[in-house]
Amino acid sequence: MENGAGAGAAAPAEAAAAWNFEPNVTLLGLTALSVRGVLGRVMAGMVVEDCGAGGRPAVPMGHGDPSAFPCFRTAEEAVDAVAAALRSGKHNSYAPCVGLKPTRRSIARYLSRDLPYELSADDVYLTSGCSQAIEIICSVLARPGANILCPRPCYLFHEARARFNGMEVKYFDLLPERGWEADLDEVQAIADKNTVAMLIINPGNPCGNVYTYEHLAKVAETAKKLGIFLIADEVYAHLTFGQNKFVPMGVFGSVAPVLTLGSISKRWVVPGWRLGWIVTSDPNGVFQRTKVVESIKCYLDISCDPVTFIQGAIPQLIENTKEEFFENTVDVLRQTADICWEKLKGISCITCPSKPEGSMFVMVKLDLSCLQGIKDDMDFCCKLANEELVVILPGCAVGYKNWLRITFALEPSSLEDGLDRLKSFCLRHSKPKVGAA
Amino acid sequence: MENGAGAGAAAPAEAAAAWNFEPNVTLLGLTALSVRGVLGRVMAGMVVEDCGAGGRPAVPMGHGDPSAFPCFRTAEEAVDAVAAALRSGKHNSYAPCVGLKPTRRSIARYLSRDLPYELSADDVYLTSGCSQAIEIICSVLARPGANILCPRPCYLFHEARARFNGMEVKYFDLLPERGWEADLDEVQAIADKNTVAMLIINPGNPCGNVYTYEHLAKVAETAKKLGIFLIADEVYAHLTFGQNKFVPMGVFGSVAPVLTLGSISKRWVVPGWRLGWIVTSDPNGVFQRTKVVESIKCYLDISCDPVTFIQGAIPQLIENTKEEFFENTVDVLRQTADICWEKLKGISCITCPSKPEGSMFVMVKLDLSCLQGIKDDMDFCCKLANEELVVILPGCAVGYKNWLRITFALEPSSLEDGLDRLKSFCLRHSKPKVGAA
Ligand SMILES: Cc1ncc(COP(=O)(O)O)c(C=O)c1O
Ligand SMILES: Cc1ncc(COP(=O)(O)O)c(C=O)c1O
Repeated sequence: MENGAGAGAAAPAEAAAAWNFEPNVTLLGLTALSVRGVLGRVMAGMVVEDCGAGGRPAVPMGHGDPSAFPCFRTAEEAVDAVAAALRSGKHNSYAPCVGLKPTRRSIARYLSRDLPYELSADDVYLTSGCSQAIEIICSVLARPGANILCPRPCYLFHEARARFNGMEVKYFDLLPERGWEADLDEVQAIADKNTVAMLIINPGNPCGNVYTYEHLAKVAETAKKLGIFLIADEVYAHLTFGQNKFVPMGVFGSVAPVLTLGSISKRWVVPGWRLGWIVTSDPNGVFQRTKVVESIKCYLDISCDPVTFIQGAIPQLIENTKEEFFENTVDVLRQTADICWEKLKGISCITCPSKPEGSMFVMVKLDLSCLQGIKDDMDFCCKLANEELVVILPGCAVGYKNWLRITFALEPSSLEDGLDRLKSFCLRHSKPKVGAA
Repeated sequence: MENGAGAGAAAPAEAAAAWNFEPNVTLLGLTALSVRGVLGRVMAGMVVEDCGAGGRPAVPMGHGDPSAFPCFRTAEEAVDAVAAALRSGKHNSYAPCVGLKPTRRSIARYLSRDLPYELSADDVYLTSGCSQAIEIICSVLARPGANILCPRPCYLFHEARARFNGMEVKYFDLLPERGWEADLDEVQAIADKNTVAMLIINPGNPCGNVYTYEHLAKVAETAKKLGIFLIADEVYAHLTFGQNKFVPMGVFGSVAPVLTLGSISKRWVVPGWRLGWIVTSDPNGVFQRTKVVESIKCYLDISCDPVTFIQGAIPQLIENTKEEFFENTVDVLRQTADICWEKLKGISCITCPSKPEGSMFVMVKLDLSCLQGIKDDMDFCCKLANEELVVILPGCAVGYKNWLRITFALEPSSLEDGLDRLKSFCLRHSKPKVGAA
């Protein structure tokens, strides 16, 4: 390596000056749409205290990943299934680009339990989590001038991937006073001839909504009327703990063709395992006819795949996980959603329009007029992180300025602690009451 | 679900007619650039025989994945490391978008062994295999009008991802008579002001080349002169069994900034585990200054990550894998490359310009003038698959019409069997010798 070192030392200043590259500004702007990117900014100034020395632990109420908490530990059967597939030595190879056939079959069967028709293995495409499912769908639907309709507020990963692929995103409102239902009149008003699809996230991130059968039927009729596809992000499927049970959008696949996106990340609480799917819920074969299916396969040909031995474990993982595990997760979520709802009532500058019924989140409105020295939601969250070591996602990260998205999927004691600190913070920054001076 | 079934039955014919979607034709065309896509066409007409009933097994000499053969079984230590990380329950969460810090550190240390300077953890970005590393780099470097320079023949995944992102690809030749070295005069002739980078694959796919220190030094000087970045696809690093040892392009990082792409897929023979990296080998900080680093981070923010527990296993996997395992793999490759070289000499319509010294492949020229009833390389491979159940990649899949890429990384007995069948096929389709009639 002597020679190498010599070459390495050659005129660094001159060398460094020779390269001129203009970065892609669209790409640089997309960090603002990423939960990870925004939380990075929120936590930038946070100095974590040494808990051993009597310091307070940080309370992560910003992201949708409760896997580190003991009460959300994944099912032992799931771990066993993956360990067995790894140890078998049969799944070290590349997988087919659409995924292993037995895995596709088992997911088809799993999802068909909630549908009025049977999915086949060929309707299922395996992906590296729901994130990659979103990436693939955006890559497939994008063409010059095309647009998709997304709810506001929204999990902005969809917008990021759509914009990266040159697609325009138009927003329709979710209505807080109606349990965050989609404003379907607005959908019809903003759709145009370049609209290819409409996104529904149910159970909802960031709103915690769980849509009724009737509302979903109307959504499907609207898509049919407009001749657009439905994208159903159902990554939080079955995480419901209120009145409405989860109804998959695919139930209406014959009314309008549905691309259902999901993963094991949330229900099995293993977001680090990166296994998801795209399912064509489309008994009429519209996706076949319009070459959406062919386009998905082409994109999968040039994409990275989920880990083969995790694919290989899925049939056992689905079959062996006990109902009890799912019930326990939902019980904890119900309990933590209750704690959150009750405690938020006691914080005067925050209002919560509706109690969450699903997913792991609740959207609350920040009343800046009661606070002093706080500029906006981002400022609120940065100061809260600095002063209280409590991390909450500012609404701007879900397209809803001056609101906050609070995750309640925490160990109950941590959640109470976090909400208490949020309350102290709000009290400390409240404007003095009129007349109190 | 009664209602659902009702909705499902509503006027399917009418519904199916309402959707009009125009697929992205660029995307549909990219399958031709994918090894998987082309092999799918080659094997389409292949009827696999029942080996139990005395039928012949198929011989897969088309793809770079020997993991199913006993002689290429991965190291037990690698499996143990992953199993331990999975069982620990500590790695079920989402990882940071750049990857887990200890993993980045261990890869930096691993790669620094062969460099004249020390990489730091911050130079390493974890990816879902080298494929995703390619995707990321193409996404980061693409801007309207930009082009990259690729070798011909080439692993066309680079072209597919570049074109998907709207980048142009220009080709420079590799010179078969000079051990497939890059034609650097041609590189200079085709580069223009929109050229952002040049790709080097070493050890080579599809050519089996291993470049000397001197040639790589000239490559670096050329990049410096042109003011373009180097992309070094080193997924076959250390799989060398001839005279030249593997020299990483990063050795010349001070001459020209290098993006090194790699993975554990090939050296550990676990392509299904999907763990790779991008490394900035750039002691002068050019990538920082030109915002390439920032762009990589932005793209990672909106990309899927490698599985967290596999990331978590990497420090142990690297530390515990014995030298003996690597030596054994290289010994088997040397042996199979020898078998391939000797047997190919006995096949008259095929010529092999140089003996492979690395990776798992050799490029051979097809002399169509000696054959009858064979139109081109694709036709040759389809008929070979049909008649002999031997799968070989046609040159068109690596941008080299009427050549073939043969994988020799097989169990030696299978390889001999496959090459014997290839010989019978060629004899059977040979034109009768002049005078023999
Ligand atoms: C609405 C929504 N969709 C998709 C995802 C991505 O999920 P996955 O972990 O399966 O990639 C998330 C993750 O938080 C999400 O909230
Ligand atoms: C030259 C080259 N680069 C990259 C890859 C992709 O490797 P990985 O399995 O790490 O995605 C391959 C796979 O065959 C290859 O041959």
